[in-house]
Amino acid sequence: MTDRFEIHQKNFKELFYPSSVAIIGTNNVKGTVPHDILINVLHTGFTGKVFPVSPGETSVAEVKAYKYVIDITEPVDLAIIVFPSSVCHLALEQCGQKGIKTVIIISAGFKEVGEAGYERELKLKEIAEKYEMSIIGPNCLGVINTDPGVNLNASFARKMPEEGNIGFLSQSGALCTAVLDYARAKHIGFSKFISFGNKVDINEIDLLHYLGDDKETKVILIYLEEIKDGSALMKTASDIILKKRKPILILKAGRTSAGASAAASHTGSLAGSDEICDAAFEQAGIIRCDNIEEMFNYAIAFVYQPLPENKRIAIITNAGGPGVLTTDAAIKEGLELAQFSENTTKILKKNLPSTANIRNPIDVIGDAKCDRYNIAMSNAFKDDNVDGVLVILTPQSMTDIDLIAYEVVKVAGQYNKPVYTSFMGEADVSTGVDIVQRNRIPHYILPESMCKSFACVYKFKERSFRKTVENEIYTDIDRSIAHSILDEAIRDGRSYLTEEESVRIVKSYGLPALKNGVAKSGEQAVQIADNIGYPVVMKVISEDIVHKFDVKGVELNIKSAEEVQETYSSIRRNVESLQPDALIKGIFITKMIPAGEEIILGIKRDPSFGPVIMLGTGGIFVEIFKDVCFRVAPVSKQVAISMIQQLNSYQLLIGKRGNPSRDIEAILNCILRLSQMAVECPQIKELDINPLIVLDENKGCFVADAKIML
Amino acid sequence: MTDRFEIHQKNFKELFYPSSVAIIGTNNVKGTVPHDILINVLHTGFTGKVFPVSPGETSVAEVKAYKYVIDITEPVDLAIIVFPSSVCHLALEQCGQKGIKTVIIISAGFKEVGEAGYERELKLKEIAEKYEMSIIGPNCLGVINTDPGVNLNASFARKMPEEGNIGFLSQSGALCTAVLDYARAKHIGFSKFISFGNKVDINEIDLLHYLGDDKETKVILIYLEEIKDGSALMKTASDIILKKRKPILILKAGRTSAGASAAASHTGSLAGSDEICDAAFEQAGIIRCDNIEEMFNYAIAFVYQPLPENKRIAIITNAGGPGVLTTDAAIKEGLELAQFSENTTKILKKNLPSTANIRNPIDVIGDAKCDRYNIAMSNAFKDDNVDGVLVILTPQSMTDIDLIAYEVVKVAGQYNKPVYTSFMGEADVSTGVDIVQRNRIPHYILPESMCKSFACVYKFKERSFRKTVENEIYTDIDRSIAHSILDEAIRDGRSYLTEEESVRIVKSYGLPALKNGVAKSGEQAVQIADNIGYPVVMKVISEDIVHKFDVKGVELNIKSAEEVQETYSSIRRNVESLQPDALIKGIFITKMIPAGEEIILGIKRDPSFGPVIMLGTGGIFVEIFKDVCFRVAPVSKQVAISMIQQLNSYQLLIGKRGNPSRDIEAILNCILRLSQMAVECPQIKELDINPLIVLDENKGCFVADAKIML
Repeated sequence: MTDRFEIHQKNFKELFYPSSVAIIGTNNVKGTVPHDILINVLHTGFTGKVFPVSPGETSVAEVKAYKYVIDITEPVDLAIIVFPSSVCHLALEQCGQKGIKTVIIISAGFKEVGEAGYERELKLKEIAEKYEMSIIGPNCLGVINTDPGVNLNASFARKMPEEGNIGFLSQSGALCTAVLDYARAKHIGFSKFISFGNKVDINEIDLLHYLGDDKETKVILIYLEEIKDGSALMKTASDIILKKRKPILILKAGRTSAGASAAASHTGSLAGSDEICDAAFEQAGIIRCDNIEEMFNYAIAFVYQPLPENKRIAIITNAGGPGVLTTDAAIKEGLELAQFSENTTKILKKNLPSTANIRNPIDVIGDAKCDRYNIAMSNAFKDDNVDGVLVILTPQSMTDIDLIAYEVVKVAGQYNKPVYTSFMGEADVSTGVDIVQRNRIPHYILPESMCKSFACVYKFKERSFRKTVENEIYTDIDRSIAHSILDEAIRDGRSYLTEEESVRIVKSYGLPALKNGVAKSGEQAVQIADNIGYPVVMKVISEDIVHKFDVKGVELNIKSAEEVQETYSSIRRNVESLQPDALIKGIFITKMIPAGEEIILGIKRDPSFGPVIMLGTGGIFVEIFKDVCFRVAPVSKQVAISMIQQLNSYQLLIGKRGNPSRDIEAILNCILRLSQMAVECPQIKELDINPLIVLDENKGCFVADAKIML
Repeated sequence: MTDRFEIHQKNFKELFYPSSVAIIGTNNVKGTVPHDILINVLHTGFTGKVFPVSPGETSVAEVKAYKYVIDITEPVDLAIIVFPSSVCHLALEQCGQKGIKTVIIISAGFKEVGEAGYERELKLKEIAEKYEMSIIGPNCLGVINTDPGVNLNASFARKMPEEGNIGFLSQSGALCTAVLDYARAKHIGFSKFISFGNKVDINEIDLLHYLGDDKETKVILIYLEEIKDGSALMKTASDIILKKRKPILILKAGRTSAGASAAASHTGSLAGSDEICDAAFEQAGIIRCDNIEEMFNYAIAFVYQPLPENKRIAIITNAGGPGVLTTDAAIKEGLELAQFSENTTKILKKNLPSTANIRNPIDVIGDAKCDRYNIAMSNAFKDDNVDGVLVILTPQSMTDIDLIAYEVVKVAGQYNKPVYTSFMGEADVSTGVDIVQRNRIPHYILPESMCKSFACVYKFKERSFRKTVENEIYTDIDRSIAHSILDEAIRDGRSYLTEEESVRIVKSYGLPALKNGVAKSGEQAVQIADNIGYPVVMKVISEDIVHKFDVKGVELNIKSAEEVQETYSSIRRNVESLQPDALIKGIFITKMIPAGEEIILGIKRDPSFGPVIMLGTGGIFVEIFKDVCFRVAPVSKQVAISMIQQLNSYQLLIGKRGNPSRDIEAILNCILRLSQMAVECPQIKELDINPLIVLDENKGCFVADAKIML
């Protein structure tokens, strides 16, 4: 962890719980940000002192104003700068002199407008480092802390949100305004709400770490447009998820390349590959959301209700159709419909009308009042086979919506199992929806979203309570072999290694390369082949040749010394005639092995997440069926297993469909060793093992071809 | 078309536009369906006469009541029966006597409660047929016609919906209540709203046909739990879509098997395979929706705005983040971001602030008022490169939401291109949302839904304006060959044909079967093989053997007469020792052909949609990668092409990835001939051609194995 990280963590207390705030650059022009932000601090019950700083005014909003921040005689914990971007650094310098440790810079006109703005940011950074200050922003909406002990609305949001247990971080200020407005209508409360803008200093990792420790925050939501340090994000997130059991939900923009370019013109972001981002989030246990609705659908489920023990749900409805739709959705999301105990069934049968459906989904029928909902819910909760209850209501002519809503709240409070609701419709059901929302019962317009949210919470519970395994480090590896080959090639200005070099590196990391050798003459070729044992494969070695097959530089299944001798000459002849300019460094000879399942293994470097391990099904599969998966290195044994199992061809590897079962343990070993190589050899830009030939169980696997790019 | 269909179409005028309505079984107990439905007819401005019929009352709701419907002296166009299910048939009989042609039976207690209810339905049906009456229901919410000329609310819905151009049909009454409540909050209007319940008489096909012709209905929405006559649904829908250009959106419950079983206990439905339902809808041009929100998201786009010429959209936003998210969503949905003309760019640059982003997405910046939205929208509309405009608003502190909403409405009215909106948030934006919704501008809470809806509308436009091709009928087929083999096997009580019989049928339909013959002796085998030409394949023929390989009953690549002679004996020996009870009918000999791409072709029968053609990639692909697609027969050439193109392995067939390009024309021919076979030979329950070996371009393809189940 860097010094800045430590400094921020120390300063965060003053950012979120200041005793005094200076608003620097405020004025008396209503309807402008510099004015409105002061009003927000003043009028939302902030418990500390407020100091307007305005070079041109003696008072702002009827509060005495100071010309400069250094004119304030009392101590100031937090400064909010709303000056034009061109002079922010001057104000910041004065904050430093005054000994202020935390500063929010609201002003826009920095990195997002290009070079000049970028220069301005460098100045801010320098000043912050000099004074050990921490800066939020610039180009942001500000910071909100709903803790009644502070009541700080240091933002230009229209209204202060309700108190709650959701911590929200956003790279986009404007999106925050939509989020706050969306949440307010649904009585969704926040613990801390932070728009961090261009993150010149404090970034999402610093804030994430803080929220991980924050007692008021039970779930963390983040909107991101770029990920600079993916591995720090993964590590911080993973720690919070596993140690604090706090879910982290991220909405990451720039999924598509056009979206990424819009993001680039917006905050100058560089988006990495979205597929790898998906994989990295999954690996770290981060829940990736597709839109803000989904994000809050999940968030309320996490903060309002206990985690379910298992995934067996009871559905309660007053209408058949929606019951069917909900069942469809539940099954699609991998949930199970609980099988009620005999006792439950008996009680339901006795207490519900004969036309009611007492099996799951329980249909209490269109004329149901709150008493029937009570019976159905209470008995579902009491049943040991039920892990959670989903309540559906349609506004039929006899439905007393509000009373049923109160009943749901009452019954839910008596059991420690989750209950979610979907009152379908919008106009007439609105008062009932309001009742459940105010009472922290998750409500969803669509039963489909309700099921999806339950599944998300269940998956989190399953995963964050799972025992994790530490990464194994192989000690039988002499990494100096790889480094010397790589460093020499880099010194020579080469952009890739020859196959022979690539195989040597792969072998040095303990991957099962085939016996091989390089021949510079026909006699040498025969010697090597004799030593390897027949049949063999022969391939030309040349840095000038990219596709060896195209120049007839490869021969397979060579069965005798005579054939080797002859092939040595014919390959040279072929290459000389088809690519006369190619410098031939020799002929590479390996063992020809029996057919097995072909797998592709690789290393890539992602600009956000660093070393990435790829595993795929070989041959045409990888290209046509995209049967491939990624994980960020280092990968643990657990993760490596999940990679293999994720492939469609896993079915083949374990010997289904009449296939022999293959040596999965050997693949696992290769993935883990490759992962270690990816971490220990940053010189490798890309690596492809294509194919890795996997033989039958206990027979191992072999690297048939390897290629390393620098 | 059946008689009943014609009778319903004739009677629909009296159902939807009655001059007089009798409510049979009403009473004075407020808050009950029999009472409330009368109130609904009376108090929502129905323009005709109303006759309460109530055996126990002299007046209901202060209107003179009749003891029996036959006591009414004036003519009655429509009767609504709300009696208990046990006496509905008596009331219906009287309706018949009275000469009433259309009846809505609201009462529950029929098919959905089991055998007794089913018997009651049979009685209703009989009476309806006797009097040439048409019945909606039973077990339904009723019928609504918002046409101001009638204003008929013949339902027990809480409130009458607004007038509009959406026709809605629902199998579930309760779902209707949710739909009406949902629509009312969003000012979504309906032309006709019909809950058809158990469809004892009038079904969704009858109603669909009527709405297809109905001038007030521009888009048709259907909620279905079962599909009985899939091919009639496809035909009717397809006609309406292609001839009337009316989109049809269906929400079909029972996607999963658990969902289907919930549906079965609900309305006694039998759900077909969901995958085939998807394919059939796609084939007919029906838009399948996943939930009611999606359904209305699409519906308002269709009824409020013109269809786009193409898919190049302009995005206008006052916030960068949402612009990125919308771009992501648009690209994901297959839309294109319009490239503005130089002129547009010039005008935007001149008229928007320098910090604005004048490229697409246009960012008018957080402090934008309605004038900037006007500039951005007007110029986007004027640009020939723009086919539609998506407007995003976030409620920032300076955003004048209502004025911008009015501006959007104003500008949208000046151009004949579609505009959709997303005012993000919920509380503060609500008044603005209300303004656009009242003015028939589609609004979406999520930009993602907005893009999805645009893509849906564009796809409909593309597809419904496409020229369709009539199905080709092959005249070179002698169907009597197939029929005689099939009929004989059925007479013998067999459940499948031998390979030899299957191949004969396939061949009779002009599919390229390999030269073959059946040998009963070694000498005959040699004769046949000589005639076919070497190499050949030999397989045992026996009805008792399912897997020929398991009993060593197959030998490949037999190259000479001697080998044939020897193999004839060895196969017999193998089978006799491994499955002594198997009756050997002979040895089947075919040509051994060169390797090609392996394809699977098949016929299945779906309970809802009838004959279905399957096409898949052969070998392990079909099982591991599920690279398979379905279409309902008969398939046109256009549809057959779409099947081939849908396969992942299409890339291989057209010769990518170093593969030779294969004879696609030959596959096409096989699909079309198989489609004709599926239609003409209903005796075939299932057929598998596995594999069909496809050779290189112009070299044809061959049926290597065929199996027909009866």
